[in-house]
Amino acid sequence: MSNSADRDDVLGRARVRDTAELEAYYDDLAGFETGALWTVANDIEPWEPTPKSAPVLWRNADLRAQVLRAIDLVRPEDAGRRVVYLRNPKRREVSAACGWLFSGIQVMKAGERAGAHKHAASALRFIMEGQGAYTIVDGHKVELGARDFVLTPNGTWHEHGISEDGTTCMWQDGLDIPLTNALEANFYAVHPDDYQVTNLPANDSPMTYGGPGLRPAMDKWDKPYSPLLCYRWEPTYEALQNYAKVTDGSPFDGVKMDYVNPVTGGDPMLTMGASMQLLRPGEHTRAHRHTGNVIYQVAKGEGYSIVGGQRFDWKERDIFCVPPWVWHEHCNTQTGDDACLFSFNDFPVMKKLGFYAEQALEDNNGHQILIT
Amino acid sequence: MSNSADRDDVLGRARVRDTAELEAYYDDLAGFETGALWTVANDIEPWEPTPKSAPVLWRNADLRAQVLRAIDLVRPEDAGRRVVYLRNPKRREVSAACGWLFSGIQVMKAGERAGAHKHAASALRFIMEGQGAYTIVDGHKVELGARDFVLTPNGTWHEHGISEDGTTCMWQDGLDIPLTNALEANFYAVHPDDYQVTNLPANDSPMTYGGPGLRPAMDKWDKPYSPLLCYRWEPTYEALQNYAKVTDGSPFDGVKMDYVNPVTGGDPMLTMGASMQLLRPGEHTRAHRHTGNVIYQVAKGEGYSIVGGQRFDWKERDIFCVPPWVWHEHCNTQTGDDACLFSFNDFPVMKKLGFYAEQALEDNNGHQILIT
Amino acid sequence: MSNSADRDDVLGRARVRDTAELEAYYDDLAGFETGALWTVANDIEPWEPTPKSAPVLWRNADLRAQVLRAIDLVRPEDAGRRVVYLRNPKRREVSAACGWLFSGIQVMKAGERAGAHKHAASALRFIMEGQGAYTIVDGHKVELGARDFVLTPNGTWHEHGISEDGTTCMWQDGLDIPLTNALEANFYAVHPDDYQVTNLPANDSPMTYGGPGLRPAMDKWDKPYSPLLCYRWEPTYEALQNYAKVTDGSPFDGVKMDYVNPVTGGDPMLTMGASMQLLRPGEHTRAHRHTGNVIYQVAKGEGYSIVGGQRFDWKERDIFCVPPWVWHEHCNTQTGDDACLFSFNDFPVMKKLGFYAEQALEDNNGHQILIT
Amino acid sequence: MSNSADRDDVLGRARVRDTAELEAYYDDLAGFETGALWTVANDIEPWEPTPKSAPVLWRNADLRAQVLRAIDLVRPEDAGRRVVYLRNPKRREVSAACGWLFSGIQVMKAGERAGAHKHAASALRFIMEGQGAYTIVDGHKVELGARDFVLTPNGTWHEHGISEDGTTCMWQDGLDIPLTNALEANFYAVHPDDYQVTNLPANDSPMTYGGPGLRPAMDKWDKPYSPLLCYRWEPTYEALQNYAKVTDGSPFDGVKMDYVNPVTGGDPMLTMGASMQLLRPGEHTRAHRHTGNVIYQVAKGEGYSIVGGQRFDWKERDIFCVPPWVWHEHCNTQTGDDACLFSFNDFPVMKKLGFYAEQALEDNNGHQILIT
Repeated sequence: MSNSADRDDVLGRARVRDTAELEAYYDDLAGFETGALWTVANDIEPWEPTPKSAPVLWRNADLRAQVLRAIDLVRPEDAGRRVVYLRNPKRREVSAACGWLFSGIQVMKAGERAGAHKHAASALRFIMEGQGAYTIVDGHKVELGARDFVLTPNGTWHEHGISEDGTTCMWQDGLDIPLTNALEANFYAVHPDDYQVTNLPANDSPMTYGGPGLRPAMDKWDKPYSPLLCYRWEPTYEALQNYAKVTDGSPFDGVKMDYVNPVTGGDPMLTMGASMQLLRPGEHTRAHRHTGNVIYQVAKGEGYSIVGGQRFDWKERDIFCVPPWVWHEHCNTQTGDDACLFSFNDFPVMKKLGFYAEQALEDNNGHQILIT
Repeated sequence: MSNSADRDDVLGRARVRDTAELEAYYDDLAGFETGALWTVANDIEPWEPTPKSAPVLWRNADLRAQVLRAIDLVRPEDAGRRVVYLRNPKRREVSAACGWLFSGIQVMKAGERAGAHKHAASALRFIMEGQGAYTIVDGHKVELGARDFVLTPNGTWHEHGISEDGTTCMWQDGLDIPLTNALEANFYAVHPDDYQVTNLPANDSPMTYGGPGLRPAMDKWDKPYSPLLCYRWEPTYEALQNYAKVTDGSPFDGVKMDYVNPVTGGDPMLTMGASMQLLRPGEHTRAHRHTGNVIYQVAKGEGYSIVGGQRFDWKERDIFCVPPWVWHEHCNTQTGDDACLFSFNDFPVMKKLGFYAEQALEDNNGHQILIT
Repeated sequence: MSNSADRDDVLGRARVRDTAELEAYYDDLAGFETGALWTVANDIEPWEPTPKSAPVLWRNADLRAQVLRAIDLVRPEDAGRRVVYLRNPKRREVSAACGWLFSGIQVMKAGERAGAHKHAASALRFIMEGQGAYTIVDGHKVELGARDFVLTPNGTWHEHGISEDGTTCMWQDGLDIPLTNALEANFYAVHPDDYQVTNLPANDSPMTYGGPGLRPAMDKWDKPYSPLLCYRWEPTYEALQNYAKVTDGSPFDGVKMDYVNPVTGGDPMLTMGASMQLLRPGEHTRAHRHTGNVIYQVAKGEGYSIVGGQRFDWKERDIFCVPPWVWHEHCNTQTGDDACLFSFNDFPVMKKLGFYAEQALEDNNGHQILIT
Repeated sequence: MSNSADRDDVLGRARVRDTAELEAYYDDLAGFETGALWTVANDIEPWEPTPKSAPVLWRNADLRAQVLRAIDLVRPEDAGRRVVYLRNPKRREVSAACGWLFSGIQVMKAGERAGAHKHAASALRFIMEGQGAYTIVDGHKVELGARDFVLTPNGTWHEHGISEDGTTCMWQDGLDIPLTNALEANFYAVHPDDYQVTNLPANDSPMTYGGPGLRPAMDKWDKPYSPLLCYRWEPTYEALQNYAKVTDGSPFDGVKMDYVNPVTGGDPMLTMGASMQLLRPGEHTRAHRHTGNVIYQVAKGEGYSIVGGQRFDWKERDIFCVPPWVWHEHCNTQTGDDACLFSFNDFPVMKKLGFYAEQALEDNNGHQILIT
């Protein structure tokens, strides 16, 4: 990987000087809906990626009150989904929190239902608070608890609700809608009956696929996403704690587990991956960078991350993002407890297309210099 | 699939009548190490498989005392492994319990160690009784409890032992040694140091890979078998109970889970699969048959199986086998408790080679007529 | 797939009416870099894709003279590559011919060399005219003839040249650079020696991998793209003619073959596919539409295509594009000869990410009404 | 891999000395259909494979006349197939030429037809002589010429015949019947109409799938074997000659190509692979050995092979076999022409099950000492 400071006035780069003759030529080319490659080559073939999104921290302390206001302002029946979405200050026009990833916070109160629809985009949820929430995905109802990670894969009918005896619930929605639109591939449909009717037992998905190292012998699953639609917090946290006892973990990420499709061991959905990582008390990781976008939500504890030389202090339920090829490192500032970061990403896209790249920061013992 | 009663005197089968001229011809052919296909064709192209092994039940009540006798008769250092193997009355010459599958019962007492070796054959264990047993596989030590399912895959260094404060332990060993030999592919080596030295934390394999729907983000596993070397009984039984709440189960097998490689969702080893199935109180399954061999060990409860028209009554720790293409059905005779059957098989071989076939018994409401 | 005429004032769509209170709310949200999803939902969740690119035909009769002018205006040493690129009138800002696909026409004269570089983007060539051209890809030199299809996959060092005794050569370059940039994943490097030195025999790639149904027994190829770097016109055309004798072909595409990686049977590169299709004399296909972008170059003959209701008359070496989800059909207007269309596409991206969709036109016997 | 000369009286091997007490124990064990592993362990866990088959050369000069005799002795309608099979002098009881591979020579005369059947076993043919032969596989008719390689995969209806204007034809049949039977998985059926009726154009398989680096765009092939049913000699030999120009080839096999499924790049059938290799004039390869069985047929030229220390001189149409883990090397004794060896093997079985192993002979410059 080349240093971005490399100069372009070398053999192998476009270094044609404009002349009157050339400018006349360019005008002629434009008339045929063409152009001279060398006038744009260095821009479209950069030495390395320059991020189009900014690192941002969205504080739960700020967001929560704003999200709750929406309860009285709009109904799910009119809004479709009652969601406050996060936007990126460098790319406000694309309704994306970072790169081609959408993030929003959805809120529903007891007894509400948001109708069934489907789309080519994939969605995931990370439950932030409340009791009694549920999702129905292609007829499979899943009851949701705090810090559960939930899938509503591409092309599935899905709807959400809160039971009558529940409380106001909030969760983060993560979607690849911006990517789906960038690739001009989004389709959308409203369920013909508005809501799904199902006779399947509640939670059949996690009760069928939630056992470790096991798969139903009758299973014929052949969809391109995970049949395990909900990854519960308790076994996830227990698995992290177990793993922490026998690993040093990653120098960049601490003790980190990826959520996987149990039927393949691979990504839970075609376009997005997700992980939960544990930072030990006081752990401060080294910096690295990679292609692909990551949106983090603090699942437990407090600390900070340094992203692109900026320090972002976070605590539980805060959300922050790391754009492509930006250095980042994490620190758990607590001395007596572990911190956990949930994250989702578009690494499956990058890896399938051959675009995943990664680099460790070598300088300064692996730590960034803060930009002041 | 054709009825085995089909007659061979039809177009499409060999039906050449011997003549003196032909017999002279056959003699001439033999002189060139050749033969006439039509003299053997109907034998080597049967309408359907005829099993070469007999169904057998080996009772723990019989075996246990015999196995314990071996403790005083041989030392692991001399025996290599102190194992009583099960043989099939129809094929005693191949040291196989059924088809190309080996099964034996190994016994060790507190403080004993059996040295490290490796072979091209794959092995698995199902723990029957005792405390303090452990296995070390390529440096990964796993502590073993009753009803745990354990792997020592092909080509791995492995050794077994009982801690000084343990008790006498017994487990079933399952191996594909007969297949490996039939395919003329067995290699064997003794560890150069006799025993493995390891600094890895005990149980690092199940603590790393034993979380449901999770995979270590740093994982680079690329071996053709599971990195999860031990599948514990407790989460397995819990998973079966959960699954039982949301499924009717298989008409032939009740509530059945396959043990899988969490990194691929597929078979734990290249040549053998394994499963745990739960029969509800009083459940009596319907009969089916399939290619491939299965060796069962009763993990919990009591009942019977009808295999090839013979009834085999079993209770915990009994072992029985089902040869290829033999009808079989299972019954939990307990009215108040579930029964669990552990089993291992050579289905991965059959499926990879395109040889897996399966058939449900249609007659008599899916139940066999007992052969009296 | 829904009809794009569907109205949005239904349950399941966002249909919140603006109020003063809501507008104040939106202002507050903006202050936290957030927004209300329902204000953008119908835009980012369209009923079906609306193409961002226009169908365009670039005539060789127009382009050829313009491209040749570049020979005297710039040198490869200054331009990097002497290429006139095609731009789309609806998206001139992204240097893409259609969607996220780049297309350009490169010209070089006898004795010229364009130095070696590499990039995360993948490239392909379709040779239009001239003799003596060659490409060197990671040390493998390939000599190029008219209508050959050539790969320079992502991450490979590659350079082009014309032998001293050659003629001026032109070829179409197809790249996924716009996609690579959209995904913020482009890296670029100039070869440290400017040009590759190689001792490998010329054309070793097609001579090793160009046999039908064969693979070198020693082959250990493990790269994510085809080792066959050049697909010659002659065997391709012969294969199409053979296939035409035994197939009716596709109602939408006539007799069509995809270029594949012989080692996998799959796409030749990670992000782009390519095909050659033959239209029989007078054949007029039915219309269909699909997600993904396609750029066609006429390899042989003449005819027209109707794309999005517009007729584009083409002849050999013309280039035209079909944007996502736009109806298209093809017609060979010759009565005595077949016509051949080379094309490349981003279907591998669409398929890997689950975004490929396809629809046949049912109305009007499968033919579009021309927009006049 | 261990030297087979290793002694068994070491820690890690069974070295229990028989005593009267042990013998009594063994008797008791036998009563329960069990045995003591240490009495058989060293036999079933050999240091390395000991071949069960002998290397054999079957000379066409011997076989041809014998095979032709069969024409007057039996009709296809009575024999099923008019085949003289090759048997191995070390294992005459299994109707196998080598290991679990069957080989036979089939002969038919003009106008004869052998009816349609199917079986779980896979079959292949290598055409030796004659004109007008054809095979019909699941309705796809293929016309066969000398040295063509032909598939009739597991489970496909297949029949053979010679056109009325053809000549007496002979070909080698290779099958995995012995393996299928060893795994108790063979099923057999006669076509309900005795012969297939087909409207498909002749040779549609090679005309559809026989193009290099190409695949029909409409193709939906999903069977576990190759859709290319016939690999013609001419393009195969041309590919070998091309490849020979740009490779040194394998030290053990010369210039060797594997026949592959064009849709996957992998084995043409689930259980058997096949190859064609070219030995340059005077080429004498080095020796190696591997698990798995190989049956060779000389396609062109003459020379000899040294197999297990024995020299076998061969010329066109001779057949010879190499058993598992036996050293072998080949020599083309012609000074002015290349020699070609067709071969088929059970490597797919060995590789899928993890049993493939290979070793180069290091001693004596890679050449065996002849056993005299």
